Amino acid sequence: MNVKKIDHLGIAVKNLDEAVKLYTEVLGLKVEAYETLEEQKVKTAIIHVGDSKIELLESTTPDGTIATFIEKRGEGLHHMALTVTNVEDALKEVKAKNIPLIDEKPRKGVQNTRIGFLHPKGSKILLELVEG
Amino acid sequence: MNVKKIDHLGIAVKNLDEAVKLYTEVLGLKVEAYETLEEQKVKTAIIHVGDSKIELLESTTPDGTIATFIEKRGEGLHHMALTVTNVEDALKEVKAKNIPLIDEKPRKGVQNTRIGFLHPKGSKILLELVEG
Repeated sequence: MNVKKIDHLGIAVKNLDEAVKLYTEVLGLKVEAYETLEEQKVKTAIIHVGDSKIELLESTTPDGTIATFIEKRGEGLHHMALTVTNVEDALKEVKAKNIPLIDEKPRKGVQNTRIGFLHPKGSKILLELVEG
Repeated sequence: MNVKKIDHLGIAVKNLDEAVKLYTEVLGLKVEAYETLEEQKVKTAIIHVGDSKIELLESTTPDGTIATFIEKRGEGLHHMALTVTNVEDALKEVKAKNIPLIDEKPRKGVQNTRIGFLHPKGSKILLELVEG
């Protein structure tokens, strides 16, 4: 597998605007885009830093994945995403090595990317592969 | 403040060798260095990915920070580190904006870096600034 870089880091927050303030007003970074993923019940602020991104994630509903995560573990680091050349091939390779997956096939991520998640029971963290 | 990139992502694991296997044998990445920080009761495997690094962290004692973290929250993403030009100035800047710090002055990190941590009650995540 050809892992090129950290694509982004997902951070679960209760209040997107408040979190954005820290990254912009204190750390001097800039929000590149805001995007809402209805299917995943999440709104995001995407912040470029070097060759990678920080994705701040706020749930759009009290029963969304991010809301559930925060309820269980509090606000904080949610997932790491790595850039791979071909996400379909990468998921097949992971499966062939008996590492459990959440997504056996790629699905749509933010900014029209093709993504797939490994299952934390194998990867210890919620690990996303992004085609790019 | 001049944040240049994601310096590294710290991941708390129970077994360093087992975690290394995932990143090397499955994801095809390479361990650049192993380092033990006696003071912080942690041994690390440092893995380059693009312009950033992944730091796998295993506690050297049952009462270390990483062991305590795992006991409370399980294995997983532990902290994010951002590269800044001057960590002393960066910490002063953060303090001046009333964001709480763990380290008011820089201390020594892995690979002879100068580092300082923000307090999660302000930054929502354990956020490290690294001079580089």
